[in-house]
Amino acid sequence: MKFLYKNSFLLSDGEVENCAKALSPYISQLKEVIASKNYDAPESSINLPDDAKILDEVLEMKEKKWTRNLRYIFDIGIGGSNLGTKAVYDALLGHFDILNPNRYPKIIFADTNDPEFLHALVTFLSKEIQSEDEVVINVISKSGGTTETISNFEIIMDTLKRKFPSIEKQVVVTTDHGSKMYKTAEGKNIDILTLPASVGGRYSVFSPVGLFPLAMAGVSIKKLLQGAKEMRELCTKDSLSENPALVSAITLFLQNKLEKNINDNFIFHPELESVGKWYRQLMGESVGKNGLGLTPTVSIGSVDLHSTVQLYLGGPKDKITTFISTENNLQDVALPETLSFPLVDSIAGKKVSEIMKAILAGVKITYAKQQLPYIEVVLDDVSEKPIGEFLQYKMTEMMYLGKLLSVNTFNQPEVELYKIETKKILNHLLPG
Amino acid sequence: MKFLYKNSFLLSDGEVENCAKALSPYISQLKEVIASKNYDAPESSINLPDDAKILDEVLEMKEKKWTRNLRYIFDIGIGGSNLGTKAVYDALLGHFDILNPNRYPKIIFADTNDPEFLHALVTFLSKEIQSEDEVVINVISKSGGTTETISNFEIIMDTLKRKFPSIEKQVVVTTDHGSKMYKTAEGKNIDILTLPASVGGRYSVFSPVGLFPLAMAGVSIKKLLQGAKEMRELCTKDSLSENPALVSAITLFLQNKLEKNINDNFIFHPELESVGKWYRQLMGESVGKNGLGLTPTVSIGSVDLHSTVQLYLGGPKDKITTFISTENNLQDVALPETLSFPLVDSIAGKKVSEIMKAILAGVKITYAKQQLPYIEVVLDDVSEKPIGEFLQYKMTEMMYLGKLLSVNTFNQPEVELYKIETKKILNHLLPG
Repeated sequence: MKFLYKNSFLLSDGEVENCAKALSPYISQLKEVIASKNYDAPESSINLPDDAKILDEVLEMKEKKWTRNLRYIFDIGIGGSNLGTKAVYDALLGHFDILNPNRYPKIIFADTNDPEFLHALVTFLSKEIQSEDEVVINVISKSGGTTETISNFEIIMDTLKRKFPSIEKQVVVTTDHGSKMYKTAEGKNIDILTLPASVGGRYSVFSPVGLFPLAMAGVSIKKLLQGAKEMRELCTKDSLSENPALVSAITLFLQNKLEKNINDNFIFHPELESVGKWYRQLMGESVGKNGLGLTPTVSIGSVDLHSTVQLYLGGPKDKITTFISTENNLQDVALPETLSFPLVDSIAGKKVSEIMKAILAGVKITYAKQQLPYIEVVLDDVSEKPIGEFLQYKMTEMMYLGKLLSVNTFNQPEVELYKIETKKILNHLLPG
Repeated sequence: MKFLYKNSFLLSDGEVENCAKALSPYISQLKEVIASKNYDAPESSINLPDDAKILDEVLEMKEKKWTRNLRYIFDIGIGGSNLGTKAVYDALLGHFDILNPNRYPKIIFADTNDPEFLHALVTFLSKEIQSEDEVVINVISKSGGTTETISNFEIIMDTLKRKFPSIEKQVVVTTDHGSKMYKTAEGKNIDILTLPASVGGRYSVFSPVGLFPLAMAGVSIKKLLQGAKEMRELCTKDSLSENPALVSAITLFLQNKLEKNINDNFIFHPELESVGKWYRQLMGESVGKNGLGLTPTVSIGSVDLHSTVQLYLGGPKDKITTFISTENNLQDVALPETLSFPLVDSIAGKKVSEIMKAILAGVKITYAKQQLPYIEVVLDDVSEKPIGEFLQYKMTEMMYLGKLLSVNTFNQPEVELYKIETKKILNHLLPG
């Protein structure tokens, strides 16, 4: 993975150095967390990439649940319980599912309580599933009490139980050790995976929350973790020039002080859109508090060149952009040497990867000319290891950014506000 | 469709009245455009909803292209050429495609030049398409010279021609009358649909750009247009209390003056996410210029309650929110009366629609308590007519907002900047 900061300008070296100095004790703290190998500290998600015990548990559970008939993994969770899984799955497989109708197993995500989607899901379960070993149901709730997740799980189980009375064999519950969900599952002899109590949802992608469904879907979780581990090394270096998470956290912080209240993540790979959505939660919940924080947005290249780029180039200068692309493409296609519709110059015979690279290069030149600050992140390609690197880079960056903003990176106090109001309303509703 | 503005507060009546007064001549102008029934004015997309000639042309082309074997419509276009189509298709059908593997025809969108996606597409075309009447290819470019669109079209045609030498019969080109693309298609006897020259991409959903692929997919375009027509009537009323587009344009304008530089569209129906993406272009290109404009964002309820809502409630107060939901659900599911995992109170036996409504109500109460301004838009349900209403409402709102901001709502001058840079790079690349 490459990082380029030359156009994150408007920052004087002195300010950058001061921030780096301020973070130096925190880097030491992160190193101590890593050395401890335990899960005492709020930062301890950083120990997941080389946790052999968790990896073993996940692979053992995969061994137990996987059959040759497996067609669908139902991933029932919301927010931190599914965004990391969806990020990796969509990047590698999900974005292409419509073009691969016969590739299995597929993951189907059930997150919110959309009546229309759930109705379609119930019909699908009734009609399309012929035997219970075609499905694995992974229900994920750290607290064990997430309204949407429990609702979806109940509906799915209620439907499948009518056809397959022993469907509970196909279920894996992922939750905190000792939660009410844990105890209920234990009482029913349902399989359970746990995540460390200190690891919050948005930092849990390398725990069983993400690893189990991804492993079931055929993703190499070892490579994913290998990428994360290597990036963790880089992102805890003391030297500014060697530590990409440090530089980009400082860039976001200083640009935010210069009234950039939006961090646009401009991703030149549509299959990484869900990685952007994972980052929205990571940034939104980690630093959006005390009246502070940047609003994370996701733009897709080249689609949004034909959509929001007019605004980005011509509108208010309120954004610090992160361009995300890849060095290599694992697949490519070339245009014919002779076009039947010769309406665009200089594209005949070219690979589409070359066209995309030319478009991105043109955009970056234009951003620089317009004095729009940006960070560049270039993944090697879209595969497990670089994705593992990227996710770990961003989680570490967010810890530094939270420290610079002097907020608690690991809580989300305001989320409780609407839950209280919703509970009041639900308590007064009679069953439908 | 219902509109509620009581919590778009912080606005004094006097300011609102002044804006309405300033827009009064423009309302008269829009009415004149409607009376003219022609396409001379930049606003003339407003004449599409009851253009009988266009409707006839589209239905005739559908008649010509539709066969019982049709399985896939390839919609090749980007930005204004596909976002409206995708908005409607995903809302009604596309969001559920993974749960309806055997429902046909499906639309497959080819927009950007993603090498991995195109490689998968070429493989899919080679393996899955058995006869030429299983596909219709609709290539859409207003100018006729969009790089990504021409590239994708060439690749798809090159692949299919090897199997089906007369595949050009299955193609419909949608472009401006007389464009180079029009002339090339004419020379090859390929079918053509045109859109009025004055109708820009982001206002073209009710032209053949959107109508043809949607009709092919089985969407009732008459109901879609009926909704648009009825909303056009409302949105050109003089009276502030009767004209929803006027009120919301004024709200966005005045809140923007109060330093809200983000317009978050918080949609409590995941299948409407692509409607949000369509709106991103509409707002981004229409008013993002001269250093002005708001950044449109899309949030999905209840997913983003578990993601960005911490930021929205606890972070900077820089957003004017539009809550988008429906009054009714055309499908619904109830939870069992007895839960197997009784971990959440007050949900047993409830319909999921009731749970979603309780969640949204809780969120709105919280926004009001936190003094976060919002507009509420409530569609009747997710079907053709209300979607037609919504799209027309938003297009008219944007015309008023552009007027209030004193920008040219219908151009996108800065988009040319990166195209020039990209062209320079492409011209110097040798074919791969």
